[in-house]
Order: sequence, then C-alpha cells, then structure tokens
Amino acid sequence: MTNAPDRFPFARLDDLPADIRTRILAVQEKSGFVPNVFLMLARRPEEFRAFFAYHDTLMDKDEGLTKAEREMVVVATSAVNQCLYCVIAHGAVLRIRAKKPLLADQIAVNYRKADLTQRQRAMLDFAVKVTTQSHTVDEADFAALQEHGFSNEAIWDIAAISAFFGMSNRIANVTGMMPNDEFFLMGRVPKS
Amino acid sequence: MTNAPDRFPFARLDDLPADIRTRILAVQEKSGFVPNVFLMLARRPEEFRAFFAYHDTLMDKDEGLTKAEREMVVVATSAVNQCLYCVIAHGAVLRIRAKKPLLADQIAVNYRKADLTQRQRAMLDFAVKVTTQSHTVDEADFAALQEHGFSNEAIWDIAAISAFFGMSNRIANVTGMMPNDEFFLMGRVPKS
Amino acid sequence: MTNAPDRFPFARLDDLPADIRTRILAVQEKSGFVPNVFLMLARRPEEFRAFFAYHDTLMDKDEGLTKAEREMVVVATSAVNQCLYCVIAHGAVLRIRAKKPLLADQIAVNYRKADLTQRQRAMLDFAVKVTTQSHTVDEADFAALQEHGFSNEAIWDIAAISAFFGMSNRIANVTGMMPNDEFFLMGRVPKS
Amino acid sequence: MTNAPDRFPFARLDDLPADIRTRILAVQEKSGFVPNVFLMLARRPEEFRAFFAYHDTLMDKDEGLTKAEREMVVVATSAVNQCLYCVIAHGAVLRIRAKKPLLADQIAVNYRKADLTQRQRAMLDFAVKVTTQSHTVDEADFAALQEHGFSNEAIWDIAAISAFFGMSNRIANVTGMMPNDEFFLMGRVPKS
Amino acid sequence: MTNAPDRFPFARLDDLPADIRTRILAVQEKSGFVPNVFLMLARRPEEFRAFFAYHDTLMDKDEGLTKAEREMVVVATSAVNQCLYCVIAHGAVLRIRAKKPLLADQIAVNYRKADLTQRQRAMLDFAVKVTTQSHTVDEADFAALQEHGFSNEAIWDIAAISAFFGMSNRIANVTGMMPNDEFFLMGRVPKS
Amino acid sequence: MTNAPDRFPFARLDDLPADIRTRILAVQEKSGFVPNVFLMLARRPEEFRAFFAYHDTLMDKDEGLTKAEREMVVVATSAVNQCLYCVIAHGAVLRIRAKKPLLADQIAVNYRKADLTQRQRAMLDFAVKVTTQSHTVDEADFAALQEHGFSNEAIWDIAAISAFFGMSNRIANVTGMMPNDEFFLMGRVPKS
Repeated sequence: MTNAPDRFPFARLDDLPADIRTRILAVQEKSGFVPNVFLMLARRPEEFRAFFAYHDTLMDKDEGLTKAEREMVVVATSAVNQCLYCVIAHGAVLRIRAKKPLLADQIAVNYRKADLTQRQRAMLDFAVKVTTQSHTVDEADFAALQEHGFSNEAIWDIAAISAFFGMSNRIANVTGMMPNDEFFLMGRVPKS
Repeated sequence: MTNAPDRFPFARLDDLPADIRTRILAVQEKSGFVPNVFLMLARRPEEFRAFFAYHDTLMDKDEGLTKAEREMVVVATSAVNQCLYCVIAHGAVLRIRAKKPLLADQIAVNYRKADLTQRQRAMLDFAVKVTTQSHTVDEADFAALQEHGFSNEAIWDIAAISAFFGMSNRIANVTGMMPNDEFFLMGRVPKS
Repeated sequence: MTNAPDRFPFARLDDLPADIRTRILAVQEKSGFVPNVFLMLARRPEEFRAFFAYHDTLMDKDEGLTKAEREMVVVATSAVNQCLYCVIAHGAVLRIRAKKPLLADQIAVNYRKADLTQRQRAMLDFAVKVTTQSHTVDEADFAALQEHGFSNEAIWDIAAISAFFGMSNRIANVTGMMPNDEFFLMGRVPKS
Repeated sequence: MTNAPDRFPFARLDDLPADIRTRILAVQEKSGFVPNVFLMLARRPEEFRAFFAYHDTLMDKDEGLTKAEREMVVVATSAVNQCLYCVIAHGAVLRIRAKKPLLADQIAVNYRKADLTQRQRAMLDFAVKVTTQSHTVDEADFAALQEHGFSNEAIWDIAAISAFFGMSNRIANVTGMMPNDEFFLMGRVPKS
Repeated sequence: MTNAPDRFPFARLDDLPADIRTRILAVQEKSGFVPNVFLMLARRPEEFRAFFAYHDTLMDKDEGLTKAEREMVVVATSAVNQCLYCVIAHGAVLRIRAKKPLLADQIAVNYRKADLTQRQRAMLDFAVKVTTQSHTVDEADFAALQEHGFSNEAIWDIAAISAFFGMSNRIANVTGMMPNDEFFLMGRVPKS
Repeated sequence: MTNAPDRFPFARLDDLPADIRTRILAVQEKSGFVPNVFLMLARRPEEFRAFFAYHDTLMDKDEGLTKAEREMVVVATSAVNQCLYCVIAHGAVLRIRAKKPLLADQIAVNYRKADLTQRQRAMLDFAVKVTTQSHTVDEADFAALQEHGFSNEAIWDIAAISAFFGMSNRIANVTGMMPNDEFFLMGRVPKS
C-alpha cells in the first residue's frame, strides 16, 4: 500500500463499498499484498467494477488460449506501450502460469527472441500489430493465425486482450501507478 | 442491422440475455436504429456488460468536462487510430451534443485547425498524447492542463476516455465493425 | 468570402487581373460560392495560374481513372497529410462525382475500410505510398497496379495527383486556409 | 539525353510543341546539356507548362530570400524525401548560386551541421517541418521565423518551395528520373 | 556454453589464442560461467580484442559517471534497441553495481518511471536521444546536462557508451546471441 | 587540422603517445592531410586504439565483400544516421575504391536508385535494416542474402560494419566532428 502518487492518492480500504473491499481483501489473502492497481482504480468504484469485470472475462478462461498465453499477450503489448506497472505485474503472473522463470523478461525485451512455439510467436505478432496499427489489420493477418489453428473467437480474444491492456497501460502511465515491489521477484525462484 | 462482417456475425436479438436485449431495444427506441457496436459486442454478453458499464461511467456525466467535450476526445483519438466506426458514430453524437454541425469533421481531419477554445485545444493535445505516447506523459503535461483549469479528476477523465476508446478502436478495427449509415448525416441538418 | 486568416488575407476580386477574376466569377456562378483556395492563391496571380493549370490537366479528364477516382486519391492522400481544407472540399466533390454520400468520410478516416473495388483499393494503396515514402516505390508497386489493369499513364496520373495535392495540402496547412462552410454538407442529401 | 527509364521514355524533341522545344533548346544552350526533368515532363505538355511556370515564379526572384537560399530549401527538403534527381541537380545549382562548393553536400546529409547563418538555419528548420508535418505548423513557427526577419511573404515562399519540390520529388521518385551525370561535378571546381 | 545459434557457433576454448582464452577463463573464474558474448566474439579474435578494449576503457572507470550509472546507460539504450542479450546481462550487472534489485527492470521498461535522481534522468534522456536521433543533438542538449553538473568529458562518456552498446546491440540481435540463464536472477536476492 | 569544435578540441600531435602519433603521421603522409576523426579520437588514446583496431579488422579485407562494397555499407548506413563526417569522408573513399565518381552521392541520397548490382542492393537493404531495426532481423533476411551468395561470415561483416559505423556516426554527431574540406572533391576527377 505504498507508491501512491501524490496526484491520485490510493483509496482507503475503509472508505470503499463492500463489494470492492471484499474483492481487495480476497486478493490480499491470496497474494499476501494488494496490487496497486486495485487501490488506484478503487478511487472510482464504477470504473473499478467495469475494469475488473472486463479483465476477468478476458483473462480467466482457458479456451482457445491458455491462461499463460493470455499473459504473454499482456506482457508483449504492455512492453510496446512501455507500461512499467503492467510489464512487471503481469510478468510475475506469466512466470507463475507458464512455470518458466525467464520467459517474461524475454518477451518484455524482444518477444521475437523469446522461447516460444511458432503458434505463440504468431499470436504475439498479431497482438503487437493490434497494439501499434490496428487500422491495417486485414485478411492476411487472420489467415496467418488460422494456419496455426486459432479460431475466430481465439483471435477476438488476442485482439481484445491487447486492446484492454492498451487501455490499462495508458491509465497506469498517466496516473503514475508503480508496481508493488513484490512482483519483481515472484516466480523467479522455486517456492521453499 | 446490416454490415455484419462474415467472420464475426452480429448477435440476434432473440438469443440475448434479457438485460442486454432490454438495453438494445431502449437504444433502438431512442435512436431509431441499433448501432452496430451493440450487436457486435452482444456476441459476448460479459464483455458487452463491462464495456457499456465502463462507457457509461466515463461518458454520461458533465463534471469537469461537458458531454460534448467528452465526445471531442473520442473523435480526436479515434481519428488517430483510424477507427471508422468510432469517428463516424461519435462524430454524429458530437454534432448533436455540441450543436455544431462542422466540428466533428474538423476534429477528425486535424483538431489543430478545429473551431475550439484554447482549453479544448489543450484537452485534445493531451488526449492525443495519451493515445500515441502515454509513456512520456509527465508533469509538464499536467501543468499545461491545470493552466486551463482542469482538475486532476478531469485529467483522469480525459486520459480514461482516450484509453477506453483506444480499446474500442482496436476492437472495431479488428472485427471490421462498420458504422450504420444513419450516423453519417445525423446532426448535420436541423430537424424538421 | 469569410475565414481569411489574418496573416494571409484573401485577395479582393476588384484588385485581380481579368483572367483570374473571370475564373473566380465562373466558379461562383456554378457553385454558388467562391471556394477559399481561389481567394488565397489569387494573392499571387502567377502561382494561381500555374496551380490551376496543373490542377485542371490532372483532374479534368476521364481516361485511365474516372473523375471520381481522381477525387478518391485526393481525399485519401489529403487525409494522410491532415489537410482540413482539401479533405473537406474534395470530400464534397467526391460525394457528388461518385454519387456515394458516405464514401468520402470512409476514405478520410481509413480508406482500407471504405466501400471500394479492389482496383480502387490498389490505387489508394499506391497513392498513400507515394505520399508517405515515394523513395521506396519500386517494380513491385507497378506490378500490383498492372494486375488491376492500370496503364503506365494511369499510374503517372495517380502519382501526379498524389504529389500535386501533397503540395496543395502543405500550402493550405501553412496558410491556415479553412474550408468554406458550404462544402461540409454538399452531396450528402439529394437536391430538392 | 540518356537515363530514360523504360516505363516512361523521354519525349523526343522533334515531337514537341514549339514553346516547349524552344525552352528546352534554350536550357541546352545555356547549360550544355538538357536536364532530364525537361525530357520527362515534356511527355505531357500541359504538365510541363504548369510545372515550369510554377517553378519559375517561385525560384526566379530575390526578394525575401536570395536565389541561393531558395536552392537551400530545395536541397534540404529533397534530401528528406530522398529524391536523387532533385538533390543532385539542385545541389549543383546551389553550389553555383551560393559560390560555396561544400554547402550542398552538407545540407543534403544533415543541414543542422551545414555552414549556414542562424537565419538560414531557421529557414531550413521550417522547410523541413513543412515537408514532414505541415499539419502541426503553428504560431510558434511563424514567430521563430519573424525573429530572423522573415516577412509573411517570405514565409509563404519557403512553404511554397518546400511544397512544390515535395511534388517534384514524388514525381521524380515514381518515374525513376535519374540526374544527368553533368550535375555531379558542377560548381565543385573553379571554371578554367 | 549453451545457446549457441546454429549459424554462428561459439568458439571452442581450446582453439583460441592464449590472450583470449586467458581472459575468458578469468571471467569464468570470477562469475562462475562464461557470458555468451565472449564465446560469440571469440570466433573472430581481432574483433574480440577491439571490442573488449573499447568496452573496458568506457566501462571500467568512475570519473564523471559511476560504474552503476554507466550500466544504467547500457540498459536504457539497449532496451530502445530491443537487445535481449544486453538488457538481461547488463541488467544483472546494474543490479549488482547499484545495489538496487528493482532498478534494471524499471529502466528496461520505461526509464522515465524508474527510481532515479534528476541527474540520472537527464543522463538517460541524453543517452536515448543519442541512440535514436543523434543527428539532432545540439547546444540545448549539452546545456541540459551541464545544469546537472556533467562535464564535457562525462557527456562524451554517455555518448560513447550509448554508441558502443548500440553497436553491441546490433551484433547481438543479428547473431542471435542469447543471454546466459544465470543473468536473469543475479542481483535480485541477497547472497546467502 | 581545422574544424575542431570548441567543446572537444582536437589532440595536438606533440602531446600524443608514440604509436598514435606514428599512425597519424602515416595517414598524413599517404593522404596529404589528417582526417579529423584521428585528431578527435586521439583525445582519448585508449578509445583511439580500440576504434582503429576494430575499424581495420572490418574494413581492410577483401573476402566475401570487396573493400569498395564495405564502403558502400558505410555510406548507406551513415546516410540513414545523417552523419556528415562519415558520409563525406567514406563517400570519398568509396569513389576511389569503386572507381565510380557518382556512386557515393547516389547511395547517400537514396541507395535504392544507385547504380548497383542486385547483390549489392540486397547487401544495402540488409545493412539499412540492421541500422534501423536490428531487433526484427530474422531468417528471411538471411535467406535473401544467401540467394545472392553471401556466406554467414560475409553477413556478419555487413552487420558488423553497419554496427561499427552506427557507433562512429553517433560519436561524430555528438562531438560535432566536421569532414575535412579535402574529402568533398576526392575521387571526383581523374588525377592529373
């Protein structure tokens, strides 16, 4: 519960509506700390609710893309947008979900050199194109993904995750949201 | 209810959950047609609900920014992202809300030449910076907005609207969502 | 005869050489108003004469490209250069020549999503490449156009129109030339 | 009369209208050779006449900007557009007009390092901005030029020359117009 | 001694000239492993020697810039060039030299959000400008650095380190040099 | 021995270590003047030695690429980086080594229009890609070069020369190193 920027101070748990406080306490219970994004967005309860509803429906499923692959999309596109919060926080989640301690750093620096399957590489090529020039996406992009077995609905997922975190990246960058210190080391060493 | 792309066919009203069908029918009642974004997102009810909850909390208020100013942000940033659906649909809304039939086209082509107050110009300079390089937003940007009387919460609004429609632009671009024909003429001529 | 910027005041009809005054009066007779580009360039009679001579020889013919297609090139490339005057004024001409009231707005926002034939799409791909990176135009670009039946002379026309309006865009942007209000609505509704 | 690309063969002098042939012969008389731009544009007499009328009215005067300064604008902006013909041909003219054998090469590579007055540097900063992002030109740009004594009409000249050669650059790049060999050495060594 | 790409296999220690083998064994002795850059460059002994001589004279001194600050320059500029090897390997060195386990990741994602002094921030602004647009470096850049107490020789160091690692980044990117696994965790947890 | 910028004055020959003075005198003997790069880098003897050792091992050989081809790479990539010193100085060397007085200027403005073999064109396409976006170099780039007969070691050479002169370009741009006047005319006219 540190790192709150002066301009947009974090919400105080005691002041929050019950549903939001409950969600935050559950995260704290599970993770051992409250990620700053919860305390920043809780300043605006309606936005908090919409944000996490959107987040959950895109990220908490395994069809078409695994949960680890969804996090790969987040890390690759957040790196393009230079969002410190999202690269670090979702890098941690990716390390845990993929059980690969090096993968998040590789994707954050240059996903083209990361330890990926060809299918995952095609997924990230598309995610980055959606991030940087979605107005030029065309049939050739869909065809390239379909060659790797992605369905139309999986392609929607890649695009929607890229788009949703593009929003998240911009909010984090403008509000000055800093990643909690805990994220930097998560998933790098085996739990003892 | 035309213009549905082959890849992502529109939802059929009859198949939709009651809350979503109710919302769509209300829009149709009010506007005389159903904007394609409703039929496209309704394919995925959870995303529909989160999207419009987010949309409404950002766009349906008048504090800090007028509703017309919020639409200016949408048109300016959607033009940067070359999103046909959002520029045309929100251009229509902007013409109606601002009661200025030429303003949306001016902003869509080059907001720097549009008929704006200096305060609105500063607002759009910031919105476009959030859209194209949010990682470089810094104190000087906040200072420039504060000189024009924007509060921190109003600045959050500008950033959040830019970010939210950046998401919307990407989804519309990838899904091939086309603006309904009705939008092109709305707000250009006095209602008879 | 409004919208003259302070820095470069419009020419006054009475002060103009006879040939230029005659041309302007003819345009006024035909259109019902004098487009601002005439009054701006008339400040410099020699440039006026060269500009319109060049304009007419490129735009007033139907071989290889129809007149409507020539206007498509103008709108697409002027949108890239964010020229308010040219997008609005030639958007109006395009609506009239193509008899398609939605096409100009589609092309101005993202020609890749516009209602075009594949041949027209290839024409605009080339026009935009000439606009943004003519130094990389090569045999592959010519081959792509020839597949759609464009002759070398038609390709010259696309390039020359893109280049000529690239000049016009820059002059309009620097001089602060504003489109006449009349253009915004022209060609959107059937003449009564 | 060499270097004609296959696609757009040069005009033959004998086939040309008298006014064009006369002009070309006069150039040949004066220069000792016919610059390829004349033979390329002469393929289309109307464009030839408009092009050179425009060229002459912008380049053949000394008010506000010297003739050498006009050529500096041509070389700097043609380098941005990577136009081989214009950089080499007008580099030669610049060497002769400025009587500085090194200046054209300096400007072509990086005008910021060239041997210029501060006034000329401001002129080229503006010319390059017109070339690359004319849609952002604003009052600050005019103010910067006025500090160096440029009148509004001189600023128009800088913009118009940049714009005109931006057109010329694109036509030369697309048609594959090569500079005559003679240009490369002109003005480098004292005439014996 | 893994991760050698097929195209450019690593040198074998036994085949190397004595001076190079000695240096590599010393590194191995100190670090516990041989960083891949040594085995890659050792394929070409003359380049190896020149590279490390240049490296050492720029990096192994404390005047003007501390050794940790030199590594900050490396990480920030290598991130711009998306060099996986350099960001990961020098990120490790930076963590150790600065005794700040989070700093390298912060700089790699967005140095503008990193935990830096204002002086270090100015240093990295300059380093990134040298990396992306050295042709525009001018007096204003020097003045900004001098305000923070950087001498001309310290500015040369910043520029030279940025330039040297710009070279290193390109060689690593083209040869497919992968960072050793050991680097990813170095400096993140206290030595036990 | 002119053109020394105020900020970084040239080394004085008398103050230099013997090996460096000897090398400089040898260059003077051969060329008739001392290129400014020697006097600038001699300010820092260790960097001088590493720089020229690296330079010599990359440039003074004929295997895979001729010496003239190596200079083509230098001129093309230095033009991208807008390095006045390197384009002018190595343009002179290229004219001499290739015995083609026009080639350096052609490559400096737009290598795509230069008088090159297809093999040389592929070489420069790769060199420019290494210069501008080495992080995207992939198998397709290697394949394109191998079609023209380049070995892996020759490809390393192209990349290393591009990378080394990318370093040199940045140092020259920041230090304000100006090309000696002698370079501008070298190789343009037959020696008498």
